[in-house]
Amino acid sequence: MKIPVVKEILSANDQVAAENRVAFDAAGVLVLNLMASPGAGKTSLILSTVDQLPEEVRPGVIEGDLASTIDADTVAARGIPVVQINTGGSCHLDAPMIRIALPNLPLDEMDLLFIENVGNLVCTADFALGADLAVVVASAPEGHDKPYKYPGMFASADAVVLNKADLLEVFEFDVDYFRRGLEMLNPGVPLFVVSCRTGDGIKEWVAWLLSCLH
Amino acid sequence: MKIPVVKEILSANDQVAAENRVAFDAAGVLVLNLMASPGAGKTSLILSTVDQLPEEVRPGVIEGDLASTIDADTVAARGIPVVQINTGGSCHLDAPMIRIALPNLPLDEMDLLFIENVGNLVCTADFALGADLAVVVASAPEGHDKPYKYPGMFASADAVVLNKADLLEVFEFDVDYFRRGLEMLNPGVPLFVVSCRTGDGIKEWVAWLLSCLH
Repeated sequence: MKIPVVKEILSANDQVAAENRVAFDAAGVLVLNLMASPGAGKTSLILSTVDQLPEEVRPGVIEGDLASTIDADTVAARGIPVVQINTGGSCHLDAPMIRIALPNLPLDEMDLLFIENVGNLVCTADFALGADLAVVVASAPEGHDKPYKYPGMFASADAVVLNKADLLEVFEFDVDYFRRGLEMLNPGVPLFVVSCRTGDGIKEWVAWLLSCLH
Repeated sequence: MKIPVVKEILSANDQVAAENRVAFDAAGVLVLNLMASPGAGKTSLILSTVDQLPEEVRPGVIEGDLASTIDADTVAARGIPVVQINTGGSCHLDAPMIRIALPNLPLDEMDLLFIENVGNLVCTADFALGADLAVVVASAPEGHDKPYKYPGMFASADAVVLNKADLLEVFEFDVDYFRRGLEMLNPGVPLFVVSCRTGDGIKEWVAWLLSCLH
């Protein structure tokens, strides 16, 4: 008797993430899952990026927070389509939350969707949302040792943005040490050193992002 | 027939936390559970605090990290007894991890034990360790909206330390807005505005801490 072997069973979350991905692909939307510590500058990066997009690339945003609509209000004030997800205490977004949010976003009228995850450098990495790209936003004040201390997050990133770079010296931030830690975990991953305040490095980051558009 | 009603069953974690607390009390040690975002300055606060302690108050440290011994090495270099717990990916310390670490710390030779939790502004608040005081370390670069966005953490704090205060202006940090959010969640909770770099405010924080010693 041949025993049936069932392989690669997806978790419930991964199943829904795969369905989300199908919906994103059907609409031709490139989706970013932005992950970071609290206050690293995820919302600032979204706004700085949108400012530099060519007119034909239409953005959208899903804001994930435990509570409040502070970031969603900021994004909406710029005229960008945005949906707020309040997780009600959960430390990360998951794929079902994204699925529930989708009917509220005009996917057919956008090309680039930023999902701003809850500020958490650990748990968010463990839950697929259906995004094309996992992007980690680090920041100078957090210190250059973060890849060594939070390896899971950096190991699974498709790109890393190091923000608040205008303050690298103030925080004695050794970019080479940071880069070595990152390279050890995730060889070849693109690193963009930017300052959302001064605009330094944003152009290079946006150029890379546009190169990922289909 | 009278039906027995069993009340207030402790979770497995809370049971072990209660046992830890008994061990701490028996040794006469005041224990702090230090929680914060990654890079807020938990280790810096420990070192700045220890520098200001009267000689008769003997410190000890438990360092919690996903990986690495970077912080424990820094603390050990100052001659402070320290144990490293690597959670192996878990986003928070829990009471059983502390119990396992305890035989490696000379509790009878210390008065003040700092437990530096994993950098995480969400999950760490949900797991009692047996500490006397839950202390949240916020920092200026994270922004003044954190109590509004991460209410659980700030609501359950016994004290809040706002670090990197030498950079409040650089980050346009509105201390009153921060304080109002905190006060709404946790009326009367002590807030200490400090800079571990300049030493500002450390004296007031240490004075409060010493007033908590039995």
